Amino acid sequence: MLLRRHHHHRLFRLRLLLLHHHHHQSQSFSTLTIPLSHPTYIIWSSNTSLGKTLVSTGLSSSFLLSPSSSSKKFLYLKPLQTGFPSDSDSRFLFQKLSSLSLRRNLPLFSSHSVLLSSLPAAKSFKPNEFSLNELREMCELGFYEEKKVLEAGRVAPELVSETIYAWEGALSPHLAAEREGGAVEDSELVKRLETRLKEGLLEGGVERGKLDGFCVVETAGGVASPGPSGTLQCDLYRPLRFPGVLVGDGRLGGISGTISAYESLKLRGYDVVAIVIEDHGLINEIPLKSYLRSRVPVFVLPPIPQDPSNDLMEWFDESCNVFNSLKDIMLEAYLERMRRLNEMPRKAGDVFWWPFTQHKLVPPSTVTVIDSRCGENFSVYKVQNKEYITQQFDACASWWTQGPDATLQTELARDMGYAAARFGHVMFPENVYEPALECAELLLDGVGKGWATRVYFSDNGSTAIEIALKMAFRKFSSDHGILPELLKNNPTESCTELMDLILSETKIVTKMASLFQVLALKGSYHGDTLGAMEAQAPSSFTGFLQQPWYTGRGLFLDPPTVFMHNGKWTVSLPEVFHSATLKPEDSTFRSRDEIFLKSRDESNLAGLYSLYVSQQLSQHSTLSETNKQIGALIMEPIIQGAGGMHMVDPLFQRMLVNECRHCRIPVIFDEVFTGFWRLGVESAAELLGCVPDIACFAKLMTGGIIPLAATMATDAIFDSFTGDSKLKALLHGHSYSAHAMGCTAAAKSIKWFKDPNTNLNITSEKSQKMLLRELWDAELVQQISSHPSVSRVVTLGTLFALELQADESDAGYASLYARSLVQMLREDGIYTRPLGNVIYVMCGPCTSPKMCTLQLLKLYTKLEEFTLVKTKMNIN
Amino acid sequence: MLLRRHHHHRLFRLRLLLLHHHHHQSQSFSTLTIPLSHPTYIIWSSNTSLGKTLVSTGLSSSFLLSPSSSSKKFLYLKPLQTGFPSDSDSRFLFQKLSSLSLRRNLPLFSSHSVLLSSLPAAKSFKPNEFSLNELREMCELGFYEEKKVLEAGRVAPELVSETIYAWEGALSPHLAAEREGGAVEDSELVKRLETRLKEGLLEGGVERGKLDGFCVVETAGGVASPGPSGTLQCDLYRPLRFPGVLVGDGRLGGISGTISAYESLKLRGYDVVAIVIEDHGLINEIPLKSYLRSRVPVFVLPPIPQDPSNDLMEWFDESCNVFNSLKDIMLEAYLERMRRLNEMPRKAGDVFWWPFTQHKLVPPSTVTVIDSRCGENFSVYKVQNKEYITQQFDACASWWTQGPDATLQTELARDMGYAAARFGHVMFPENVYEPALECAELLLDGVGKGWATRVYFSDNGSTAIEIALKMAFRKFSSDHGILPELLKNNPTESCTELMDLILSETKIVTKMASLFQVLALKGSYHGDTLGAMEAQAPSSFTGFLQQPWYTGRGLFLDPPTVFMHNGKWTVSLPEVFHSATLKPEDSTFRSRDEIFLKSRDESNLAGLYSLYVSQQLSQHSTLSETNKQIGALIMEPIIQGAGGMHMVDPLFQRMLVNECRHCRIPVIFDEVFTGFWRLGVESAAELLGCVPDIACFAKLMTGGIIPLAATMATDAIFDSFTGDSKLKALLHGHSYSAHAMGCTAAAKSIKWFKDPNTNLNITSEKSQKMLLRELWDAELVQQISSHPSVSRVVTLGTLFALELQADESDAGYASLYARSLVQMLREDGIYTRPLGNVIYVMCGPCTSPKMCTLQLLKLYTKLEEFTLVKTKMNIN
Repeated sequence: MLLRRHHHHRLFRLRLLLLHHHHHQSQSFSTLTIPLSHPTYIIWSSNTSLGKTLVSTGLSSSFLLSPSSSSKKFLYLKPLQTGFPSDSDSRFLFQKLSSLSLRRNLPLFSSHSVLLSSLPAAKSFKPNEFSLNELREMCELGFYEEKKVLEAGRVAPELVSETIYAWEGALSPHLAAEREGGAVEDSELVKRLETRLKEGLLEGGVERGKLDGFCVVETAGGVASPGPSGTLQCDLYRPLRFPGVLVGDGRLGGISGTISAYESLKLRGYDVVAIVIEDHGLINEIPLKSYLRSRVPVFVLPPIPQDPSNDLMEWFDESCNVFNSLKDIMLEAYLERMRRLNEMPRKAGDVFWWPFTQHKLVPPSTVTVIDSRCGENFSVYKVQNKEYITQQFDACASWWTQGPDATLQTELARDMGYAAARFGHVMFPENVYEPALECAELLLDGVGKGWATRVYFSDNGSTAIEIALKMAFRKFSSDHGILPELLKNNPTESCTELMDLILSETKIVTKMASLFQVLALKGSYHGDTLGAMEAQAPSSFTGFLQQPWYTGRGLFLDPPTVFMHNGKWTVSLPEVFHSATLKPEDSTFRSRDEIFLKSRDESNLAGLYSLYVSQQLSQHSTLSETNKQIGALIMEPIIQGAGGMHMVDPLFQRMLVNECRHCRIPVIFDEVFTGFWRLGVESAAELLGCVPDIACFAKLMTGGIIPLAATMATDAIFDSFTGDSKLKALLHGHSYSAHAMGCTAAAKSIKWFKDPNTNLNITSEKSQKMLLRELWDAELVQQISSHPSVSRVVTLGTLFALELQADESDAGYASLYARSLVQMLREDGIYTRPLGNVIYVMCGPCTSPKMCTLQLLKLYTKLEEFTLVKTKMNIN
Repeated sequence: MLLRRHHHHRLFRLRLLLLHHHHHQSQSFSTLTIPLSHPTYIIWSSNTSLGKTLVSTGLSSSFLLSPSSSSKKFLYLKPLQTGFPSDSDSRFLFQKLSSLSLRRNLPLFSSHSVLLSSLPAAKSFKPNEFSLNELREMCELGFYEEKKVLEAGRVAPELVSETIYAWEGALSPHLAAEREGGAVEDSELVKRLETRLKEGLLEGGVERGKLDGFCVVETAGGVASPGPSGTLQCDLYRPLRFPGVLVGDGRLGGISGTISAYESLKLRGYDVVAIVIEDHGLINEIPLKSYLRSRVPVFVLPPIPQDPSNDLMEWFDESCNVFNSLKDIMLEAYLERMRRLNEMPRKAGDVFWWPFTQHKLVPPSTVTVIDSRCGENFSVYKVQNKEYITQQFDACASWWTQGPDATLQTELARDMGYAAARFGHVMFPENVYEPALECAELLLDGVGKGWATRVYFSDNGSTAIEIALKMAFRKFSSDHGILPELLKNNPTESCTELMDLILSETKIVTKMASLFQVLALKGSYHGDTLGAMEAQAPSSFTGFLQQPWYTGRGLFLDPPTVFMHNGKWTVSLPEVFHSATLKPEDSTFRSRDEIFLKSRDESNLAGLYSLYVSQQLSQHSTLSETNKQIGALIMEPIIQGAGGMHMVDPLFQRMLVNECRHCRIPVIFDEVFTGFWRLGVESAAELLGCVPDIACFAKLMTGGIIPLAATMATDAIFDSFTGDSKLKALLHGHSYSAHAMGCTAAAKSIKWFKDPNTNLNITSEKSQKMLLRELWDAELVQQISSHPSVSRVVTLGTLFALELQADESDAGYASLYARSLVQMLREDGIYTRPLGNVIYVMCGPCTSPKMCTLQLLKLYTKLEEFTLVKTKMNIN
């Protein structure tokens, strides 16, 4: 009870904040939910005036006007209508279908409405109701009409035909909206469409599984015609990703337009289940089918009468079979999609072997079916009474890889198509091609600026680390005369002979293999391949069960960490420092910025750190067998990711680098997690205030859509591999080294993230250093850090992490303690994946602070719920 | 001399064969060369009748009709003209430009020609020359006209305006060609265009570097309108990949069509330097510029007079500034491209760190600039007197990854765009999404059929191998009671406690780490990360200089190999077997098929192999320290790739598997190189006639465009990781596990390669087992194997390899012996990369046997040259 009262006023304030958010930004950030209990299709067209509305009308007649369709309901939505009221596709459909029902003598209850319009359109439509001096906003037109063709003793099928937004000018919606006022935000439009979809059809009692409902959403103009805000319609509707029918062009030149429109849809991740063209005697369907390799059926409609006085009744009769087949294809595709979505969790459990997953703990019911992603959000398929698709914010950034918002994702998709078409993959060594060169140049001018001169490409963080270790050890060998030592009794200058010598002497191999160790930090994680594993301290990941060959080739130090608790940033020192007496200003900070100040180098703590490191280094070389050498320092700058989102005291890391420089030990920064704005700066080395000799990048480097890694190095490192023999070169490589698609994605993303025109989060503060603005609401962060269930909080850049207060038995990587909280968050639209009892929310470098705040608010709310449940459990 | 005479008759026959090939297939297989000494642009349009020819005309007038353009030459090519002779874009341009030169009082020498036409078009054009009963082929129309507007004492600039193919019907070329006869093969069209480009402009003495030449190639209809064969024009012209100008649509709905056309071009790897639209008062340029983010300029032409009697002279005057700017943009883009192409080799040498490359041996002059790839061919930029782009057959299959022909490449490009747009990358563990599931299902139904039940995704062959080793060792531990042994003094059932125990006891860690070894073959190669390296025998790749931590944790056996020499397949036994007496039929084969016969299991040799393996296994366990165990067998089935393209005797490998099964040692097949039709079957296990417990796939799995790997396993392997604790799960994973683009590419390629409709090389022989047909001309292979410079040949599936006869000092990985041969091949259009003194040519699973034969013929010819040079050198 105390707990609850204590938090009451705060919660109240937060809920207000949440409501406020919902009111003002709900359209952008609230969770979309799309019912799947009946088919919903979007009708696209490759150009204007190709007959989209005729196709919608034909489909509705085919669905509703049959002897057996008594309880059926067809919803037609026209989100954007221009040329209104003289043009109104929803009225056309409403009227034609009424006429067809009379003509065919079949009952029908049809209604027609127009919800909103610009003021000119409203005045033109209802001159008496709307006056000239109203606001230039969309007017609630609220027009409704209905018709009934009934049959005694029989329920009539129902047509609902609606226009959502209408403008008067017969122009593209973006021009009409500009000229007539009535701007409509993309998110508002999408949200309203979602609402109409839910209200217009489903709640009316259409029975699930009986295919009694059918919905079409008809676009305006061509697939890439702009909507009212200027956003292309294919982008505008993308969060909904309805399957579609494309109305193509049967005229001369129409093959090209139809194929291009189809490709624009594919380039946005849409599925197209059928193409429909009008017969113009050019058999355009033949090349279309050949292009489509029969994967998508092409329907041909009879020539459409051009005489405006023709009521089209005969044409609809003639087209009846085509529309019946089209409708059947659409129903089949819907059923097939549902069948597949429903079987996916079970099949996944049967055939996948998921990484880092105990399959026994994952029953099909807990498997997440991801239908697509759009920017930061997953679209997830769910069944709870009804089938639907809902959004989840990807708060684990899909293992910390994600960067794109929806706009960048579309750009990257086009670039991926381009790179695959231009290059596929081409051989890298001794060759050059544009994406690899551009990517290398951008890396050297960005994260490598001021120190690196070479880029070594590989596939992932783990391989990048193995390469880095090889580089470092070679440099150390040449700096410390390890090789000449080897050759003492066998004076030879030739590399080949040296190799032969080494190979022939098994003892030397073994001796040499145990020569080098790394200096590294406990809690670090550098990847899963054996070489990378050897560079990290023993942990749950390195046991014999996991890594049969692991020995841990390193001196592993326990690092001091920094975190926020009760609103304060504090250093937490490992045991070795506990005897030291520190001034309070050395171990607590007034702000996070203070932690990174270079002036801390003058503090007592700096001296303590330095002394400790140099002692450890000299002790190690004395204690271990004669031959062991620390050949490299390797660490994740600032944040240890997989180790539990710990912020290592940057001062300590700086002192480590200084000491190693002093001993001519090459320094490796593992920036696989920290690089590319993850921590609010392009490279975490900027926060640390010192540069490495070698650094590894991956994950966010490509924006998060394709694997690629880079190991960057100084000239001095590179030089230790040059010589006359190929055997002295670095003989390490992967087939897809510097593959064109990866380099293309990286080049695009690197530029995108740091350009203030494309990334609104970029700020150039004081020293002209580029930073991301603060993404996490400061007050909210402080409040969470003061929550009784939270033992520490770390926020930096795109990362917000908290550790749940837990008993020792509930802590650690394998802990299931956070499970219920994770479940609550997923139900509230946040996809998180815990690290034991550490929960984190991660966004992309371009994610708006408002979207971040919304996630934090949700997290706070669920944290309260979680705490209440845990408290109750303890009381019971 | 003896050598030369001996080969004379053979060479003669081969040259005939080569000529024959050149005559009949030259269009498909001969090397295209595109001059770059002046700009060449292709004019695209988003639909018909949008003014492509007006743009071409405006450009030519802007280029030629200025006071300073005396020595300039403009080449206009219209490859496909329909509606001829009443429509003729080349004549329109010719006439308009002549009129403009008169109007502007500027000199011009212009010519116009029409090269070929269908018979109806020819008859219509020259009724007296062509009769009804000629062949239904394209007629040599050979029409030529010229006009001169001269000025005394001044050289007139020159316009060359040409139509290459013309048809009478005002239809799409594919329909016209069908109706009028005169089918034109794509390759013929492209070849003729290449020839016209070279002859029409350059040889005429246009001076290099002075921008005196300019060429445009104007397409017909829209970007994706079919050419005469039905191939879409954007695909048809793809091997040439000219930069382009897109004539878009300024009308209502035109934004969409323009954007879609632009995307179709990007999806085929084209660059577009400018978009041009006609002003229709709808300011379509604004949304276009916004979409393009100002990366591509958009030009707006004044409204085009619709009155047919208007001679457009005033319109051209009005448009003059627009065309001047457009021309300037095109010249700048050309210069920028040339600048970049020229600087690339030096820049590459400055910033890249190429894998497996001794940079000191790679001066800029030897760097290959790859401008693009199309199917099996690179387009390579070269400067030899003039700048040009030429094709090279990618005979190293870009490190054995490549599979796509041009058609599959385009399909994959669209799929990559789709997958990136639909998914980007999404989190894999505990989730399911379509591409990952489909890919896993296809793998289990294909390469895993009959044995595998689980798919573990990772990024490359090396990581797949590390995962496989972890799987195998766990299985071995559980089968052989290794874990209970460990727990003898510490009885505990909990996995966590076990982990704690292991972690706390450093001695145990070290002891355990040296417990497991692999059984493997000398010459094997399993990847470059440390774990994979540990599983291979000492080699140039594993020395201390390369792998400081390598020890070689295995029992490495010397395998018997098989190869062809002097036309005969023979077994070569390692030393241990030299004392054995073998029947001739045991060691030589009448055909390659005999090598794989299961009946060989009954031979003496089978017994010898078996005995040897079992002896080695038992000796090893006796001799080595008590604790060492062979925990896994790992091998590349049939062909050892990086080790030098050695075919291991499949009988020996089968016996190895049998013996290991007997000892309950898990069997790993490393099919990273051999999988997916590389060896003519989907999985090399089919050739071996036995299945593994674990197998690794990568490289060709995605068709060769994107990295992805799979480790597949049986249920029994999987089961050894299930339990109650997460710590018992396989804790290995990479950020991009099962990334959507990789899985999409794999799913598409797996289906494409095995479908006889898409892969014409697929045959279903006898036992209904699917095979690739023989790709390498049998006679030619035999002849090469008998060449005095060749010590052995191996061909299988997509692989042809030969080892050059060399002294020991010239053999091995670091040998530069083959360098001059490699250089000759590259100059002849074959991009090879040797493995020391081993040369190989590798194609894709869909490559036509004819294309393969052409490469072999070239190889044979260059081999003769190489031999002559070497012989001369020896004589001297």
